[in-house]
Amino acid sequence: MGIVVQKFGGTSVKNTERLFNVARIVTETYAKGNDVAVVVSAQGDTTDELIEKAKEIGDHPSPREMDALMATGEQMSAALLAMAIGQLGYPVKSLTGWQAGFETDSTYGNSRIRRVNVERIEHEFGKHNIVVVTGFQGINRYDDITTLGRGGSDTSAVALAAALKADRCQIFTDVDGVYTADPRLVKKAQKLDAITYDEMLELASLGAQVLHNRSVEMAKKYSVNLEVLSSLEKKPGTQIKEVVKVEKMLIRGVARDNDVVRISIVGIADQPGIAYQVFSLLASKKINVDIILQSIGRDGTKDISFTVSRGNMEQAMELTEELKESLGAQRVVCDDQVSKVSVVGAGMVANPGVAAKVFGALADANINIQMIATSEIKISVIIALQDSEKAMNAIHDAFFD
Amino acid sequence: MGIVVQKFGGTSVKNTERLFNVARIVTETYAKGNDVAVVVSAQGDTTDELIEKAKEIGDHPSPREMDALMATGEQMSAALLAMAIGQLGYPVKSLTGWQAGFETDSTYGNSRIRRVNVERIEHEFGKHNIVVVTGFQGINRYDDITTLGRGGSDTSAVALAAALKADRCQIFTDVDGVYTADPRLVKKAQKLDAITYDEMLELASLGAQVLHNRSVEMAKKYSVNLEVLSSLEKKPGTQIKEVVKVEKMLIRGVARDNDVVRISIVGIADQPGIAYQVFSLLASKKINVDIILQSIGRDGTKDISFTVSRGNMEQAMELTEELKESLGAQRVVCDDQVSKVSVVGAGMVANPGVAAKVFGALADANINIQMIATSEIKISVIIALQDSEKAMNAIHDAFFD
Repeated sequence: MGIVVQKFGGTSVKNTERLFNVARIVTETYAKGNDVAVVVSAQGDTTDELIEKAKEIGDHPSPREMDALMATGEQMSAALLAMAIGQLGYPVKSLTGWQAGFETDSTYGNSRIRRVNVERIEHEFGKHNIVVVTGFQGINRYDDITTLGRGGSDTSAVALAAALKADRCQIFTDVDGVYTADPRLVKKAQKLDAITYDEMLELASLGAQVLHNRSVEMAKKYSVNLEVLSSLEKKPGTQIKEVVKVEKMLIRGVARDNDVVRISIVGIADQPGIAYQVFSLLASKKINVDIILQSIGRDGTKDISFTVSRGNMEQAMELTEELKESLGAQRVVCDDQVSKVSVVGAGMVANPGVAAKVFGALADANINIQMIATSEIKISVIIALQDSEKAMNAIHDAFFD
Repeated sequence: MGIVVQKFGGTSVKNTERLFNVARIVTETYAKGNDVAVVVSAQGDTTDELIEKAKEIGDHPSPREMDALMATGEQMSAALLAMAIGQLGYPVKSLTGWQAGFETDSTYGNSRIRRVNVERIEHEFGKHNIVVVTGFQGINRYDDITTLGRGGSDTSAVALAAALKADRCQIFTDVDGVYTADPRLVKKAQKLDAITYDEMLELASLGAQVLHNRSVEMAKKYSVNLEVLSSLEKKPGTQIKEVVKVEKMLIRGVARDNDVVRISIVGIADQPGIAYQVFSLLASKKINVDIILQSIGRDGTKDISFTVSRGNMEQAMELTEELKESLGAQRVVCDDQVSKVSVVGAGMVANPGVAAKVFGALADANINIQMIATSEIKISVIIALQDSEKAMNAIHDAFFD
């Protein structure tokens, strides 16, 4: 008995059969004596269809109008899910973002939740109603509709759980939890019973694609008990919390990110201030640089390599080319056939053998490491794109076999 | 220069091409120096698609959730139209029912507008924005979304025009005005330059299907200058106002209504209080009776005939059958092969020849009149369904040829 927030993504509510499946999960939770707030995304392809309609009108629709349009997707799925729950004989009300008290800033298309005013939801709980809330949306201080951007519904669920001081926040997806690696790439991947917020953050930003980063950050900030589980199979998922017993598991998972390209400036005159020139220029254009490697000077010149996402490749190349002369560099080269493979685990801080084990596994598999980056709970390597799957399996085998 | 409210129905905004057509009409009005508020319905078949989705879930969805679902249709079209207007380079904002200040009572699916709080719209006018408002919807005092029922967007437009004290309220449709008869049935039908509220009310309730009654009643109450015109052809439509010069036109139009059945209670004992028994029972079940005919007593018995809509036929028959014994009636018969043909015109009050001309036209066409009802501005006859088109043409020829 307590307050439970349950979030269901677009595939979980994509048609009538799935809506009733969700309705059964929700009403079972309610029947156990819980207050239940459900957060839903738009059905299946609705969002894409709405984007298509907008594109027909013009390439650059007003972001404000885009949000008003997009918000209808969740309003539809919330009303339909409420109908399905009602059909099962339970008291229920759907609420839009503004009705549910989601107040955001004014950045249309990518707004942040400022506050959730849960007065209305608590009023409905008081009347023993199940509440279905539209994810992904809110209103700003002008009473205009805003949307939260990618992964927004996860963030809505966590923010709501925090505001309601919920006992649990369950994120239902089409996978049944967080794995030590993507099971489609690594056959021996294992489901984790639990993982820390920090580990999950590293895995999410590394492309594990289970939970959006912003939602995990918020869960960490407000100590929300998160759980990722399957909407189709009835079994425990993965808990995400502050502290997880390390046991024998040194690392928590292996992930890869193919949305990465490596740019190298070769043969730069070996003078101070070079790195500042390069990265302040990129930062001024809001280009996010991930891993940076600066070679040690030799023969009076040095090289700088860095990685950016594919979407930023062209602009980063242009900017770097502009700098080439003033840097006294010989040439700028780019490699888009690379991949970033990372191992994550809070346990590695206390165990210096992790890095060696990673490098050893890659060497045994005859995979060349181009760049290395480490943090307290993560080791990432840049390798050739064609080796990425082999690398993940080699590392996974080294730790979990 | 002034305030103009323009309303566009579902077919007028059904696709991108039509949206831009509407955007051009709106921006031309704005470019002449007017403040423009646009009221839109949902695109083409959207409403039907949403109903279909709800039906898949269950036959009796919660009316509250149904309204939350239906309201997305107008929210979509309003946002898309705002995008199209923006694409033409004009400043514009879309507003949902609650954003635009439409406060309604709590009857889900068929609510009535209590008040339009135009503060937000006037604020947008102050910033020289065109405003696109979702028709058909509002919120009740619980902050829940409501819809206005059939013809709701017309009512939204008129209510908004009244609240804004607009100079004009233009209802754009797929016909170019109000005709003396349905041009699909009567070839010689003529477009009217103007018509009074009362005449329009009679024509609307008689099935002229141009404007919903509720919107005309509201226009009359608040003296809103209404105009019905085409969204596809650029020419004047029909003005609807308090007083219209009668000129030579005795009548304003001929309409028919096929949604009518005649029920007769035959051979009732000729005692007082019979009519009261019948019609109070029907009224208590909310069955609306239109025309009533009571024969003069003969041989100690009399007959009562009345008309109801087709949807009420079965229930009305059952109720009347129950009464048969206590009325001492011989039998109850029903005829669903009838039609109501009516002529409407404020001019007929002052001219007793109108009724005679109607009956003469029908006699010449060899059409038998089953029942007659008259008001100050209307004469209706119940005739055989198969004769209705012929009757309309005969009457129309008599007055307009």
